[in-house]
Amino acid sequence: MADTDHARRLANGKPRIDFQTEPARYRHWQLSIDGEVASLVMDVDEKAALFEGYDLKLNSYDLGVDIELADALERLRFEHPQVRVLVLRSAKPRVFSAGANIRMLAGASHAHKVNFCKFTNETRNGIEDLSENSGLKSICAINGTAAGGGYELALATDRIMLVDDGSAAVSLPELPLLAVLPGTGGLTRVADKRKVRRDHADAFCTTEEGVKGKRAVDWRLVDEVVPGSKFDEIVAARARELAAQSPRKDAADGIRLTPLTRNFTPDGVDYGALTVEFARNERIATITVKGPAAPPPASAAAMLALGAEFWPLKLARELDDAILHIRLNELEIAAIVFKSSGDPAQVLAYDQFLDANKAHWLAREIRLLWKRVLKRIDLTSRSLVALIEPGSCFAGTLAELVFAADRSYMLIGNREGDNKPPAAVALGDVNFGAYPMSHGLTRLACRFLANPADVDAAKAERGNMLAAERAQDLGLVTFALDDIDWDDEVRVFLEERASFSPDALTGMEANLRFAGPETMESKIFARLTAWQNWIFQRPNAIGEEGALKRYGTGQKPVFDTKRV
Amino acid sequence: MADTDHARRLANGKPRIDFQTEPARYRHWQLSIDGEVASLVMDVDEKAALFEGYDLKLNSYDLGVDIELADALERLRFEHPQVRVLVLRSAKPRVFSAGANIRMLAGASHAHKVNFCKFTNETRNGIEDLSENSGLKSICAINGTAAGGGYELALATDRIMLVDDGSAAVSLPELPLLAVLPGTGGLTRVADKRKVRRDHADAFCTTEEGVKGKRAVDWRLVDEVVPGSKFDEIVAARARELAAQSPRKDAADGIRLTPLTRNFTPDGVDYGALTVEFARNERIATITVKGPAAPPPASAAAMLALGAEFWPLKLARELDDAILHIRLNELEIAAIVFKSSGDPAQVLAYDQFLDANKAHWLAREIRLLWKRVLKRIDLTSRSLVALIEPGSCFAGTLAELVFAADRSYMLIGNREGDNKPPAAVALGDVNFGAYPMSHGLTRLACRFLANPADVDAAKAERGNMLAAERAQDLGLVTFALDDIDWDDEVRVFLEERASFSPDALTGMEANLRFAGPETMESKIFARLTAWQNWIFQRPNAIGEEGALKRYGTGQKPVFDTKRV
Repeated sequence: MADTDHARRLANGKPRIDFQTEPARYRHWQLSIDGEVASLVMDVDEKAALFEGYDLKLNSYDLGVDIELADALERLRFEHPQVRVLVLRSAKPRVFSAGANIRMLAGASHAHKVNFCKFTNETRNGIEDLSENSGLKSICAINGTAAGGGYELALATDRIMLVDDGSAAVSLPELPLLAVLPGTGGLTRVADKRKVRRDHADAFCTTEEGVKGKRAVDWRLVDEVVPGSKFDEIVAARARELAAQSPRKDAADGIRLTPLTRNFTPDGVDYGALTVEFARNERIATITVKGPAAPPPASAAAMLALGAEFWPLKLARELDDAILHIRLNELEIAAIVFKSSGDPAQVLAYDQFLDANKAHWLAREIRLLWKRVLKRIDLTSRSLVALIEPGSCFAGTLAELVFAADRSYMLIGNREGDNKPPAAVALGDVNFGAYPMSHGLTRLACRFLANPADVDAAKAERGNMLAAERAQDLGLVTFALDDIDWDDEVRVFLEERASFSPDALTGMEANLRFAGPETMESKIFARLTAWQNWIFQRPNAIGEEGALKRYGTGQKPVFDTKRV
Repeated sequence: MADTDHARRLANGKPRIDFQTEPARYRHWQLSIDGEVASLVMDVDEKAALFEGYDLKLNSYDLGVDIELADALERLRFEHPQVRVLVLRSAKPRVFSAGANIRMLAGASHAHKVNFCKFTNETRNGIEDLSENSGLKSICAINGTAAGGGYELALATDRIMLVDDGSAAVSLPELPLLAVLPGTGGLTRVADKRKVRRDHADAFCTTEEGVKGKRAVDWRLVDEVVPGSKFDEIVAARARELAAQSPRKDAADGIRLTPLTRNFTPDGVDYGALTVEFARNERIATITVKGPAAPPPASAAAMLALGAEFWPLKLARELDDAILHIRLNELEIAAIVFKSSGDPAQVLAYDQFLDANKAHWLAREIRLLWKRVLKRIDLTSRSLVALIEPGSCFAGTLAELVFAADRSYMLIGNREGDNKPPAAVALGDVNFGAYPMSHGLTRLACRFLANPADVDAAKAERGNMLAAERAQDLGLVTFALDDIDWDDEVRVFLEERASFSPDALTGMEANLRFAGPETMESKIFARLTAWQNWIFQRPNAIGEEGALKRYGTGQKPVFDTKRV
């Protein structure tokens, strides 16, 4: 990794938040593997906070802690395919986790709070995806207090085990203590996953000290309470039981998730398979993804040998990092423009290779990674635009970037004096099921909600190179434009986008992107997060006399008592 | 109606917003009936705004305009059961409606904006309910500009007809013009009802001047464009067609929705079938509903003769008015406590009477009114508590108040020295389907999401008088308490509730009340409204340099360009 000044600091001089890490550099977690059981032990280094001004006491966490957790989960997927059960534990006596650090929340900007919650939510959804789609089941072994975000982490696992020692308890004290919500999925998972009766949930979420022992089981807050003397033994037994039920039967060795190659420049980031360019005056980030340089490997064994260099995996990891970088570090960017360069037929060939090897654990994990990356894009609060130009390769998996975009523009024919092949969009099987959005529909099913026959019409074109006007007729792109209109239309659109209120765009896009049903996952980002963001703006939480600011000062918060 | 000072002004001296009106007093609408077709003509009196500081130009509206619209819809249901089609029109030349009045929005408090949007949303959902469940179909005949809330009103109808005169257009200019969302269902109905493709929706919602003519049809924004010369004729023809399809075949005469009898006192409101008492220091409103004074009438004809005095109708209208009064006029109230007095067997008898007469239009409309009133309660941002005491009658329809509550407390046995019968809860058929919440589940199905067998167990108890401990065992009430604990437990709970941040309670309750699926209707209140409320707090909209404040000043808004 290039370690220039640009790598550590942003153009505005602020430190860059880096989402890349590896187990040897963890400050807060210990990942260990014992056969089919992995242990992820939370042992937060209170002096290793991401920002100044707070200590991470009692296994409280900030974004830095969660970046390591997210990294560990990726390693379990790719580096340890033999693992069937993950046990989450704490290394602190009588404390599992005190949740998100309160002083961090009190001091953070609104944008950071919102982005922090979004990332932690995505990580927890990843734990559930790991269980549901990779067969890696999880247990949260709570040895003491699991408060707020600590309990919310437990809620993401398959089985919550609580020690029964007269004081260990689970709690969501955000409302009584801080005047905010348990917003990392807490309210939604209590209601929709644990299906806690609403009046019990009400009592639980307004009780600072939480619930312990038999009542925690009766109210469905935990699956089991276990005497302290037998805790380790019974946790181990449950891990074995879950392992036996796990369909993850991949005894194979994993691959190494080698560090990403990144070169940070003042105006962008160069990765191996994509580049990011910032036009900061125009508030635009252009992400150009590069198609594969060579045909797919001849076999699954050859894919394994390529490891993290295998093009679909390499690009997905880089794209994920680029999106997170823009989200957290480049707040002024209004729109992300997706471009691509390469051979669309080659992209389809890689999709077909993954289809042909879909029983292979690595092919499965790569598809699941793309699903998560694409979901992360859907949930990114920037306008998303696809520019489909000659020489581009928006095919199959990469066509999902077009369907994730709020608008797409496609050039008809060639540009004068340019001999690149005319733009083509191409579809594959992968566009019709592999990548559901967080609300459960594929992007094409969501796009064509009015007329499912349009999905069938698109499906019939699988494998065809669709020129601009054909793609427009099929409804796959927003506007097909010729060379004469292109520059002006695109420029005016991007200028307009940068002129609008960023907040209103965020709200509009969050609504228009998710037509159709909701799922528990989408409810977390819609109902719960939207309310939390509102509360994160309200003086009762963040004002000088608000609960977040006054926490720990000995002064009681002062509330505006009007109910809104 | 008592016209004392309390009737016009609140305890704090501010004018009371009154939700009661009648066609003879309308300032903004003309309701006329011609056989099976009703016309509701919008003709806003620009000098008759609800507050000072703005004129209602170009058929723009404020809460006062919408109160009349809501009243007119109720009259169509109850006073004009022969009507099969409603045509919404404008009396202004070349303007249908400019939407919610911008200066009103710019000047209103946050709480008023939120309550205004909630009420207008409920009214528009009522138009859809009228179509779906009463068979009264609706047409919006747009003779010119339908902007923002004007188009959102159209979106609630079954058929949108737009004159094709080269300038008439539909638009949602909120985002480009005001930096807020089309929050009266606009974004959700464009995406989920009209199923406009998301990129078209994006283009539409960012285009200030809107869309007209053929494109408006192609993009599914309207159902039909009609030349001006033929507009009236074709609207009339479509009305006849819809009337022919309508299942509302009730040639009968309606009943009169006579004015509610209300007596406003400094500390409450006395209605005929309920009382509201304010304990303002404790921030509690207690609503005591009274069971029927006499058995149900002998026949549907006798019910018709009772008209608005028929107990279930009378109570539903009063309860609706009381809830709206508290919402809009009593902002400091933290919790609404529901109590009841009467004979639970009589309440069940009325439910059975309505069941037995469910084919009768009046019985159907009364059930639908109760459904809407109960939904309004679910969506009320106050903590809801049911206190079930000796002498109460929480049975059947009234038991829904217990299930709508965030918590319920039920007294075991008698109070010393009190000879009222011990508290009983009783269920009827009505609790298992008649009153779905806005997300589609019955309150009991939502309550027992973890175990549908609990719904069956409750169902098996229909008609039985369930004492406190039995009701608790069945999961129907939160806590059964004896006389010794009652006062302290209830007092501590209510004090605690009043001590919490009102905003956090609103967010928590909005999440915990709606476990399970979402519907278009619930998405409007969850996804859309929650984002709108966030935006209504953001300086980009409401700051001194924000778009809402600067609209019409000639100065451009200044935005914080960070994307959150």
